[in-house]
Amino acid sequence: MTPMTAIPSSDILDRFTAIVGEKNAVRDLAEMAPRLVENRGLYRGASPLLLKPGSVEEVAAILKLASETGTPIVPQTGNTGLVGGQTPRADGTDIILSLERMNRIRDIDPVANIIVADAGCILDDIHKAASSVERMFPLSLGSQGSCRIGGNLATNAGGTAVLAYGNMRQLCLGLEVVLPTGEIWNGLRRLKKDNTGYDLRDLFIGSEGTLGVITGAVLKLFPKPLGHQVAFAGLASTEDALKLFEMASNLCGTALTGFELMPRIGVEFTARHIPGVRDPLGQPHDWYALIDISTSDSAETADTMMQSLLERGFEAGLVEDAVIASSEAQRQALWHMRESMSDAQKPEGGSIKHDVSVPVSKIPEFMTTAEKAVLAAIPGARICAFGHLGDGNIHYNISQPVGADKAEFLGRWRDMNEIVHGIVLSLGGSISAEHGIGQLKRDELAAIRPGIEMELMHRIKHAFDPAGIMNPGKVLVG
Amino acid sequence: MTPMTAIPSSDILDRFTAIVGEKNAVRDLAEMAPRLVENRGLYRGASPLLLKPGSVEEVAAILKLASETGTPIVPQTGNTGLVGGQTPRADGTDIILSLERMNRIRDIDPVANIIVADAGCILDDIHKAASSVERMFPLSLGSQGSCRIGGNLATNAGGTAVLAYGNMRQLCLGLEVVLPTGEIWNGLRRLKKDNTGYDLRDLFIGSEGTLGVITGAVLKLFPKPLGHQVAFAGLASTEDALKLFEMASNLCGTALTGFELMPRIGVEFTARHIPGVRDPLGQPHDWYALIDISTSDSAETADTMMQSLLERGFEAGLVEDAVIASSEAQRQALWHMRESMSDAQKPEGGSIKHDVSVPVSKIPEFMTTAEKAVLAAIPGARICAFGHLGDGNIHYNISQPVGADKAEFLGRWRDMNEIVHGIVLSLGGSISAEHGIGQLKRDELAAIRPGIEMELMHRIKHAFDPAGIMNPGKVLVG
Repeated sequence: MTPMTAIPSSDILDRFTAIVGEKNAVRDLAEMAPRLVENRGLYRGASPLLLKPGSVEEVAAILKLASETGTPIVPQTGNTGLVGGQTPRADGTDIILSLERMNRIRDIDPVANIIVADAGCILDDIHKAASSVERMFPLSLGSQGSCRIGGNLATNAGGTAVLAYGNMRQLCLGLEVVLPTGEIWNGLRRLKKDNTGYDLRDLFIGSEGTLGVITGAVLKLFPKPLGHQVAFAGLASTEDALKLFEMASNLCGTALTGFELMPRIGVEFTARHIPGVRDPLGQPHDWYALIDISTSDSAETADTMMQSLLERGFEAGLVEDAVIASSEAQRQALWHMRESMSDAQKPEGGSIKHDVSVPVSKIPEFMTTAEKAVLAAIPGARICAFGHLGDGNIHYNISQPVGADKAEFLGRWRDMNEIVHGIVLSLGGSISAEHGIGQLKRDELAAIRPGIEMELMHRIKHAFDPAGIMNPGKVLVG
Repeated sequence: MTPMTAIPSSDILDRFTAIVGEKNAVRDLAEMAPRLVENRGLYRGASPLLLKPGSVEEVAAILKLASETGTPIVPQTGNTGLVGGQTPRADGTDIILSLERMNRIRDIDPVANIIVADAGCILDDIHKAASSVERMFPLSLGSQGSCRIGGNLATNAGGTAVLAYGNMRQLCLGLEVVLPTGEIWNGLRRLKKDNTGYDLRDLFIGSEGTLGVITGAVLKLFPKPLGHQVAFAGLASTEDALKLFEMASNLCGTALTGFELMPRIGVEFTARHIPGVRDPLGQPHDWYALIDISTSDSAETADTMMQSLLERGFEAGLVEDAVIASSEAQRQALWHMRESMSDAQKPEGGSIKHDVSVPVSKIPEFMTTAEKAVLAAIPGARICAFGHLGDGNIHYNISQPVGADKAEFLGRWRDMNEIVHGIVLSLGGSISAEHGIGQLKRDELAAIRPGIEMELMHRIKHAFDPAGIMNPGKVLVG
């Protein structure tokens, strides 16, 4: 199961090159450089060869040769992953298989509400294709201009629309996958219901390229909502935010399409560093909720629902102040603030990040406990914890104290992980809510999960990839 | 991987008995008899022993002993499955493991919208528990008074609420499973988002007891809708039904909680045989739609939405006639007609049944093509094809011609399967939309699916159940 660790011979590299042709095989280091580094610079790898196959048959030929020669393969699409899952290892043994040339929309059917796409399609292009037939594809991420469907599926991507529409797992009906042995599994089904044997689709989704290469998918489309309204509310505490979320869930049901929590410091960071962003409320508040409502029947329903929610929130003493967007531009501006929250931390120095989830009802307890523990460990640390309250998913980011040494602060990354993840686990939470495991959390996963669970994953890995060539060193150890 | 085929020795039976105690181990044939037969009499099995463990530890001890001694185990909960998955094989080698004593609700949390239940809980008891805290659990089946959660999960049960809430897979957050080797996997997570490794949960859901025994689950609850309205509409064709469904989807979004299609003959059968059922419309129509709308904000919204939908349907010439229920009793009466459609066929003689799905947009083509082929093969056959149009899922049932010989008609079961399933597959459909594979469709599955897909399922089976003791002969051959 352990693949070779030697760099593939030039003979082997030539055989891989022959599959895709010289012009789709990159050996030049400068050209390859952007593919060797993870987005935030956390991981840098090396690779002797980058392959850009143009068809599922070429992908199959690559994997067949890889299995035969024991050559490790790293699949890569938009290279926007945040856990190093798409980055080759540093020893230079991994060949990169990029799906970027496979970016065709194979079919779109607005009656059946389905789009069939190559794995290399950029998420934004799927949005545009859906919009052109008066439909929408709900997956919405900060990186949607460059991330690609294959990576979205391999990592079971989340984002801001999960509350109403679910993760990528819930948005996918069928898959086409090339197995590590080079066989093609055509599971491109378009069915809402299909109980015929083991759920292979959901096994590939979220497996981060370690069980096979996803080359195509059938995705669900939805009618465009007729009504859309966004509000921004100032709140006194995370307890009040949770109560307001419950109120919104009960009132709006599935029309509640977003409920994002932000701290005061996050609003300050964005107002300070992101052009065009300003605090829309007159006075500061400790916490903020961005509330998004979409309705299918009419534009008025969304307005009425939002008005009604905020009125009830005021009456119950949960909302201190609030604004409702009065134009599409204002709606976009409010979302822009939320989506810039991560970027706005960069000018403030080092930031130690976590992508965690807890049961929704435990968010206040998590926030209080974690803040106390983090400040005890690093007095003056600035906690910018924001995220998808409705999903129980918080991006628990910690900015360095003002004036602290950045490198020294970032040296505490593991300490902070231990503190924050310890609290998350004590509350029954997850150390990776939506970003996945990759390299970043691989060893930690093995440490916190029961032995039998890791053992089952290893058995599945071995059953699908006996030669151990698929993205080795990611998700699972060894 | 092949388990023993000899009947377990009395020594081995005694060791199993010792685990649960004499009073929870049944060897008496009369007492065991109802557990040996499938609901519709399609399968009759034999078993030397029925075990009723009272805890997950006892289940673990049973499976450990089974793996050690190579004794086949059939898990059983409500025994309402329709494909023979829960029925022991006829050779008398399989021990039945019933979860009926494990029927405790472990926790219920209306703030987090979660219920944690033993696998032996009856579905109706979950409904009642949810209702007692002003929540609802959406899974809704004809057999809900006797089916149990473990079986619902093992078969990824569907039912009438799938359109808005999804199958059992979408309603489950976490599982507790005893593996064939006797190890306990505690995956009882309560998280909406958790991207930490392979999706074991979805692998167990729908695996029909062949990979392990589900002993507990974390299920999602939902706010009770404030508004609920049901209408019954007479239509000219399945094409019009599809157009009306599209109109309803666009207008109501996720407030559309049911869209059931019924043929004239089905309405006649229920009016003739089911006490209290009558055709609510003055004139006969070729097809009918039962439309169900639930709204979260107010009762009026559901009424307004339904009125608006039917008005638009009339204007577009899709609806010939319609009634809207004017009381809860009338709403229940309309659903009762739909839910009795299967029972109403029994007094009409033999019925050959199919549980198929096609892409929703292909329902009219499927209906027309199948009707022509079935009537060519059996002139006078009465096609009572009804079901979940919004899911693309039709229960394509064929009642015998009036006056035909029942046994002779039922002898055509395989012929009819071949005809109907052939058309389903040519349209990219599924031969088992919601009932599963069990024994009934095991050989057919192996025949229609690509070799690599069956091979992957066998590898997973072997990885999880090396001794081959878990519900052998179900889903997979050998």
